[in-house]
Amino acid sequence: MRAASGAMASFRLALIQLHVSAVKSDNLQRACGLVREASAKGAKVVALPECFNSPYGTQYFKEYAEKIPGESTQKLSEVAKECNIYLIGGSIPEEDGGKLYNTCTVFGPDGAMLAKHRKVHLFDINVPGKIQFKESETLSPGNSFSMFDTRCQLLIYPGAFNLTTGPAHWELLQRGRAVDNQVYVATISPARDEKASYVAWGHSTVVNPWGEVIAKAGAEETVVYTDIDLKKLAEIRQQIPILSQKRCDLYGVEMKK
Amino acid sequence: MRAASGAMASFRLALIQLHVSAVKSDNLQRACGLVREASAKGAKVVALPECFNSPYGTQYFKEYAEKIPGESTQKLSEVAKECNIYLIGGSIPEEDGGKLYNTCTVFGPDGAMLAKHRKVHLFDINVPGKIQFKESETLSPGNSFSMFDTRCQLLIYPGAFNLTTGPAHWELLQRGRAVDNQVYVATISPARDEKASYVAWGHSTVVNPWGEVIAKAGAEETVVYTDIDLKKLAEIRQQIPILSQKRCDLYGVEMKK
Repeated sequence: MRAASGAMASFRLALIQLHVSAVKSDNLQRACGLVREASAKGAKVVALPECFNSPYGTQYFKEYAEKIPGESTQKLSEVAKECNIYLIGGSIPEEDGGKLYNTCTVFGPDGAMLAKHRKVHLFDINVPGKIQFKESETLSPGNSFSMFDTRCQLLIYPGAFNLTTGPAHWELLQRGRAVDNQVYVATISPARDEKASYVAWGHSTVVNPWGEVIAKAGAEETVVYTDIDLKKLAEIRQQIPILSQKRCDLYGVEMKK
Repeated sequence: MRAASGAMASFRLALIQLHVSAVKSDNLQRACGLVREASAKGAKVVALPECFNSPYGTQYFKEYAEKIPGESTQKLSEVAKECNIYLIGGSIPEEDGGKLYNTCTVFGPDGAMLAKHRKVHLFDINVPGKIQFKESETLSPGNSFSMFDTRCQLLIYPGAFNLTTGPAHWELLQRGRAVDNQVYVATISPARDEKASYVAWGHSTVVNPWGEVIAKAGAEETVVYTDIDLKKLAEIRQQIPILSQKRCDLYGVEMKK
């Protein structure tokens, strides 16, 4: 999931590390309340976590799934417009044609849906004695990409890591992506709920293009604010010009669909 | 640079963090001596650092450059055969057709050269007040890839980071590559020489496929030993099956030459 901002020199980003309960209407109401709070504090781009309207678990996805557009995305559109912000709607379980997807939607300041991205690589894991989970038991993968015309400056990943992969890989992967691509990277996790069947890692984070963590939540419900400085990004791209050194004569990434 | 080992369940890897002086014959002699020492301690794969026979710096490359085969690679071939090991020959400045390259060679236990890889992405950097360096002032980039038939299990990078990029990116990048590809990653730096024009970071490192640092040198000349456990690698690839989840129907990396 990518968001980009070409014209602004800097803007405030807010990550909403929502406590997700089993009551969908409550999740939606509290998410929209925190979006309004973030907007009041000057955030122009606001992001929700993966699976923000439903508990995360294969046993929940079918019950909580919706069409898009549907109740949840309608509320996201309205609050984006009301607050005049860009809203990355984390993800929700989506139902379409009898299949379920893990789907992220993005809304602009006029309330229009700018992107709908179905998770392409589902999360399957089996670390004996630690964690076993298979999204692919109930979800189908998306089969298309979500792209923007602008040169990407900020990667936003709504994600729910766990107590095994969280300490091992959560921060590492986003710092790696930041340096590899010389971009800001933000991740948004649900708040940790020790009583849930799947215990999320929390620790929503923002990393700058030099690979430094510039903001990081704990495990509890909170909103993380960061001022994203695009001038600094431009400077780093000049200091280590990896992008102009790409060897497009030798290799390329090919899209097949 | 890739080395792979299909049949062995485990093997000993040695990284030679060589102190590189301005005397080429001395560098060669001491490198070969440490290769013999590593072999005597059971290493089956031994790796030298980037630019191991010459000080690292654009002002040195022309003077120290050789043809391949030439004096330095001849010595590498001989010591690989004598010790019955795989030897990743770090890199040397190579001269060919009036151009200079930063070139890595790899030798097998019979002394045959298995690969010759010219650095494709040269190192240019300009962080004001910190470090300025342009390999591209004197070096030409390589234009081809070095590939092996086997499924890669170990990535070996001879590299000379500095006191700016070293603390920021050296460990991060190799841990990132290890988790992204579920491979072991080893990096081999020259030892740090505070009097050199380019001060190398040192800290030759081995990372396992879970992203954990399992061996790490300080800044001084030393040999790092690690037993590479390929069974553990196979287990991790089963635990998080990212490789079987690749969507080759959606994307691919295309080689253009």
